[in-house]
Amino acid sequence: MTDNVSLTNLKPIKPRGFPDITKQTLQRQSQLIAAVTKVYKQWGFQALETGAFEYASCLGQFLPDDDRPNAGVFSIEDDDEQWMSLRYDLTAPLARYYASNRQNLPNPYRRFAAGPVWRNEKPDVGRYREFLQCDADSVGTPGFHADAEMVAMGAEAMRAVGARENEFVIRLNTRRLLNAILSKVGANNKKARLSILRALDKLDRLGIDAVADLLGKGRLDESGDFTEGAGLDRSSAQIVLDFATARKSTRTSTLDALSAMVGGTEEGRNGLNELTSISSALTAMQASENDVVFDPSIVRGLAYYTGPVYEIELLSNDKDAVQRVGSVGGGGRYDDLIARFKGESVPAVGISIGISRLAIALNQSKTDNYRDGPVIVLNLNRSDPSEALLLATKLKKAGVEAEAYMGGSGMRPQLKYADRRNSPVAVIVGDDEIARGVVTIKDLKLGSELAKSVESNEEYRSQRPGQFEVARNDFVAEVKSIVERK
Amino acid sequence: MTDNVSLTNLKPIKPRGFPDITKQTLQRQSQLIAAVTKVYKQWGFQALETGAFEYASCLGQFLPDDDRPNAGVFSIEDDDEQWMSLRYDLTAPLARYYASNRQNLPNPYRRFAAGPVWRNEKPDVGRYREFLQCDADSVGTPGFHADAEMVAMGAEAMRAVGARENEFVIRLNTRRLLNAILSKVGANNKKARLSILRALDKLDRLGIDAVADLLGKGRLDESGDFTEGAGLDRSSAQIVLDFATARKSTRTSTLDALSAMVGGTEEGRNGLNELTSISSALTAMQASENDVVFDPSIVRGLAYYTGPVYEIELLSNDKDAVQRVGSVGGGGRYDDLIARFKGESVPAVGISIGISRLAIALNQSKTDNYRDGPVIVLNLNRSDPSEALLLATKLKKAGVEAEAYMGGSGMRPQLKYADRRNSPVAVIVGDDEIARGVVTIKDLKLGSELAKSVESNEEYRSQRPGQFEVARNDFVAEVKSIVERK
Repeated sequence: MTDNVSLTNLKPIKPRGFPDITKQTLQRQSQLIAAVTKVYKQWGFQALETGAFEYASCLGQFLPDDDRPNAGVFSIEDDDEQWMSLRYDLTAPLARYYASNRQNLPNPYRRFAAGPVWRNEKPDVGRYREFLQCDADSVGTPGFHADAEMVAMGAEAMRAVGARENEFVIRLNTRRLLNAILSKVGANNKKARLSILRALDKLDRLGIDAVADLLGKGRLDESGDFTEGAGLDRSSAQIVLDFATARKSTRTSTLDALSAMVGGTEEGRNGLNELTSISSALTAMQASENDVVFDPSIVRGLAYYTGPVYEIELLSNDKDAVQRVGSVGGGGRYDDLIARFKGESVPAVGISIGISRLAIALNQSKTDNYRDGPVIVLNLNRSDPSEALLLATKLKKAGVEAEAYMGGSGMRPQLKYADRRNSPVAVIVGDDEIARGVVTIKDLKLGSELAKSVESNEEYRSQRPGQFEVARNDFVAEVKSIVERK
Repeated sequence: MTDNVSLTNLKPIKPRGFPDITKQTLQRQSQLIAAVTKVYKQWGFQALETGAFEYASCLGQFLPDDDRPNAGVFSIEDDDEQWMSLRYDLTAPLARYYASNRQNLPNPYRRFAAGPVWRNEKPDVGRYREFLQCDADSVGTPGFHADAEMVAMGAEAMRAVGARENEFVIRLNTRRLLNAILSKVGANNKKARLSILRALDKLDRLGIDAVADLLGKGRLDESGDFTEGAGLDRSSAQIVLDFATARKSTRTSTLDALSAMVGGTEEGRNGLNELTSISSALTAMQASENDVVFDPSIVRGLAYYTGPVYEIELLSNDKDAVQRVGSVGGGGRYDDLIARFKGESVPAVGISIGISRLAIALNQSKTDNYRDGPVIVLNLNRSDPSEALLLATKLKKAGVEAEAYMGGSGMRPQLKYADRRNSPVAVIVGDDEIARGVVTIKDLKLGSELAKSVESNEEYRSQRPGQFEVARNDFVAEVKSIVERK
């Protein structure tokens, strides 16, 4: 059965955008998922996870680039000739699940999930084709307090992952207000509306002047690429920009400013009423003005949103100035997504926190390099490793992370290995130690500290800093006490 | 942007073999992964996870059905025209990772991982196309103590997930002994060898007579399907069967029995030496004869194994008789897998525990139906839910899982909802309660117990079992004490 294993020169490379993730980042991801799901659970949501694949038709096409149909997802034709796609988010599969299990679910149905999603996009720095999201959704909830709950819970989740006041903000808007301003400037067809919304979506990144160009005739960027504009005249573009930058210092004063701009239309009044109700629910839930702001520039790319939309942004507090780091999540109301299956509208609202993004953002802060590796029991008898195996077994039975060295090398490479594993302690037991009933313990942290004050190689070798012998019966307790000191 | 959301009659169905997983099973899976990875970490392994996709060429074709090339995996052509496949296990991606990062890794390199794998197979009861595995691998470890470590650690992991003595067993064999017996009966080409190994692999499921047929002329099963046999004559088939059933009560006595059968050939002696070394290492690691047995019938399907192979089996202890439930994991040595990249053999050994399988097996045992849902604060004022939101916020701030009801219905459906969510407590605050400065608490568990001893509906309504009022200032402490009693 091993015939097809042949020695070749296959290159060990991997497809772009699928990262290998190591210890520190994995640990951070687990901690983030644990912290966020704990909040979701505490707020009354229950766990549901769906499979990686859905039928392409059930997922629908709601990704931002919806003028490129089929792009954005990974699709495979199944052996029954139906197309399946890897999920691009956790919301679309939930809609399918809810539609097919509605009769057996509590009403409302409140679920949370954590898992990978896949997007077939051009990978870039910090932009992967596979990443982790952690979502909560509330289905069958028409009231605006359900929207407010998502946002207030998002703030709580950010606090749970360690973000403090002014280190994050949730920006809230509603599609209704956006629709009102689109109508006001006469953008009535889908293409024109999309162009304007996309231009607004770039306000953060490109600034006002660039967005003004994108709303008007178009923009030539530094690389010489030209992006076609939405074709608004100067005064209409100004109306849109005034709207998008109307945020004031409190939720109430922002509402007042927006009221002056779009209060004259029915769509505008609906949007304002929506935000007013959310505002009072946020107050009842004690969500502070620092955590949640109304920001009319927020668009959100996914096409299934129908009402309130929001984005969670991580801020950097360095140098006494708040800087914007980037979006680490968001969500909104999607009252029509389940209707695709049922033919009747089912009100629903959700939030998604980007665990991979958050882990990367937090990884950029300083990391401790403490000795958190396993204890290494050196294996000095190549023909019979029993002694090293037995000592490692005793350590593990006492709750200490430990291993007997499993490679084929001598003493120096074994100590080097312990160092690379960040081991706190190496345990040495050769024939001499066995004969005398002792074990040699090398405290690797103490050793490396002491080594700094040693004058010469000769002195180091004679002193063996951090290294000492104990009676065999005492070695487990001794090793344990060193490990627990770290 | 909502133009493409239209009301249709899309069917909410999902592709076969990708399960929706709910609360209890998810919880069990998380617990299993936490328990197993804790053991791996304690034994000195460090975390590494790779992406879902690898280049198809790097993954290689090692699945059991290797006479159906390309089958068994989900593959997609990337936009640079290279074929990528979803990983079918966690070992093949590790080989790619190690080959490409070798210079920067400790030697030996010991890693663990947990995550989904995908197999493009025909789904069946309990056989999915997506499932979770939790693996540990040790690369750069030529010694047989590394094999023994995997097996002993596997036993420890089984104990960590709650399996007791005689509720699981790890069956160990080596490909070298299998090769020796194949040579002994003159099976020299790949096809013949594969047929014999596949027949042996069915010994558990089909029994000796059926396997005798499969080793010989072939087998007609109950459904009338004919499976071609390996074509051995009667005496050769008997030699193979005697070998496969040579297991004795201890590891040492099994070795003695096997020695009499294949000790005369070099390959046989190599296999026996391998198992003898592993045996003494197992003793040094205090792995009991109950946990780890030598079983010459073990084959393991994956084509990359080169030496020792093992399977973890869950046993059922019901009715005073040990029954075999099924394989929940396994592993082996794969010294040639990394050689495909490097042109030189890198010794490596691994173990994989099937988390999804284990969760299903454990789910079949009885589950508690305790009231572990959130506290529900009923929302009795439809125009202004602030009061319910505030009370739920106070409970959450005190560490209680709680939600204000978010649906649009009246009191009875809200209580029914609390029941479906397995809530321990419902909190009721209407205009009357607000005016009197009190809160009504309904202890739902006590209520349903008391209701059993109530004679009539009228009596029930007048008594309202389990329901009482407390002063508003005391309600958090009161609810908390009921929740913590459960």
